[in-house]
Amino acid sequence: MTLQAHQVTPALQINSAIALTAEQRNYLHNALRLNVGAEFIALDGKGIWWLAKLGENADTAEIIAKIENDTELAAKVILGIAMPKGNNIESVIRQTTELGIRQIVPLYSDRTIIKSGTELGNQKRDRWQRIAEEAAELSMRTYIPEVNAPQTLTTWLSDLSTSPILKYICVTTPDAPHLLTSLQNANSQNANLQNANNLPIAIATGCEGGWTVREEEMAIAAGFIPVSLGDRVLSAVTAPVVALAVVGAFLDTSSGVSSES
Amino acid sequence: MTLQAHQVTPALQINSAIALTAEQRNYLHNALRLNVGAEFIALDGKGIWWLAKLGENADTAEIIAKIENDTELAAKVILGIAMPKGNNIESVIRQTTELGIRQIVPLYSDRTIIKSGTELGNQKRDRWQRIAEEAAELSMRTYIPEVNAPQTLTTWLSDLSTSPILKYICVTTPDAPHLLTSLQNANSQNANLQNANNLPIAIATGCEGGWTVREEEMAIAAGFIPVSLGDRVLSAVTAPVVALAVVGAFLDTSSGVSSES
Repeated sequence: MTLQAHQVTPALQINSAIALTAEQRNYLHNALRLNVGAEFIALDGKGIWWLAKLGENADTAEIIAKIENDTELAAKVILGIAMPKGNNIESVIRQTTELGIRQIVPLYSDRTIIKSGTELGNQKRDRWQRIAEEAAELSMRTYIPEVNAPQTLTTWLSDLSTSPILKYICVTTPDAPHLLTSLQNANSQNANLQNANNLPIAIATGCEGGWTVREEEMAIAAGFIPVSLGDRVLSAVTAPVVALAVVGAFLDTSSGVSSES
Repeated sequence: MTLQAHQVTPALQINSAIALTAEQRNYLHNALRLNVGAEFIALDGKGIWWLAKLGENADTAEIIAKIENDTELAAKVILGIAMPKGNNIESVIRQTTELGIRQIVPLYSDRTIIKSGTELGNQKRDRWQRIAEEAAELSMRTYIPEVNAPQTLTTWLSDLSTSPILKYICVTTPDAPHLLTSLQNANSQNANLQNANNLPIAIATGCEGGWTVREEEMAIAAGFIPVSLGDRVLSAVTAPVVALAVVGAFLDTSSGVSSES
């Protein structure tokens, strides 16, 4: 039984109290049927799990310990996704959240149906953020992924151009190396591996029809390495899930790529 | 422009003719607007692409060449999936078909909601097979995955118990090795790698709640190796997609595991 406590009490610490919302009280007391003094796990949405105890006062719980957990990926992974058709991005948000994504950046690209300049409003972004929160709760993530407001590919590339992170763009060019091979190469080129200090990894996946040549060239100029997800023809919905699965398998079976190069 | 020709003409060969159905004629002539003599690709659903030419007679096309393609996985991969809730298996069929699955075996398990003995009828199986065919067409697969009628885990394990194939069951036990590591180990234990002769790989994934201890023990007794898909909590819908992505990344970046051991 876990509770996302970050909404109400931003900075949790031992012996501090969590103020419970009416909804959370109802969940703990009525849905889970916890009694006064019962223990549960409170997540602060920032990577830490806290053991909490339901207070005498029905409105509060007390933080009694910090819990060690290591279910998160060993590196921060960011997905830049050219928005697929309709509501298809929603299943991508759900599945990549399960797989440990930390940040999702919906992108306008040459082939997205929604074009830059369209007033999407905050409604979509808020809905996508809620989907990420729900999926994070179900898969007991310690971090809630951040879903950004849509931006152009150009803006995103420019924002990342000077960041010390590994950057990959998924392409269908036949001679592009596999994402797994590229990650393994980046790893072997770096002698000083340190788990705690892994480089963040950004991955860009296209919408239906993929990236245009112009976009691939722009990304490469911004330091992105073009990679393949294999020889199969993947849909815009499946490609990001596969990319995250490959990054996860790489990080889980190696030490990641250190930022101490 | 491709056409799944296997429904009408089971054994294609050069200089033979394909008899076109009314639907296929309509697709080629009206949707694709091909004229007499225009070329298109005919897939026989068995792994081979054929270059075909639309005949003078509107009802037929002539096979003029065999096309080499290597978009299929280097080994036959079979998924045994404990049926998830509701229609959730449908997205699994779609996504694993994109990822190159060759056979999907829906399983009754201790925790599936649908229990063995329930009369599912052929309607469900036929619908799932159609979904696999549609997904195979969209992702230009050369093989149409076969979706079996549901069977019990016990029957499936027994059927595979003497087969010379690699067998993995995805579990959440903390000390299980990662699927990628297990595949790499199987690979390195075999000195005589031959692409053309790769061992088939069977993967079992659970439904909501996973496998029971009893089931894991039965699978291990039948030669299955328990493996992890990483430290994250994956839904029953995402786990098989991740398993296929990992197998695909392994096969695409290595030579697979030879049956010539």
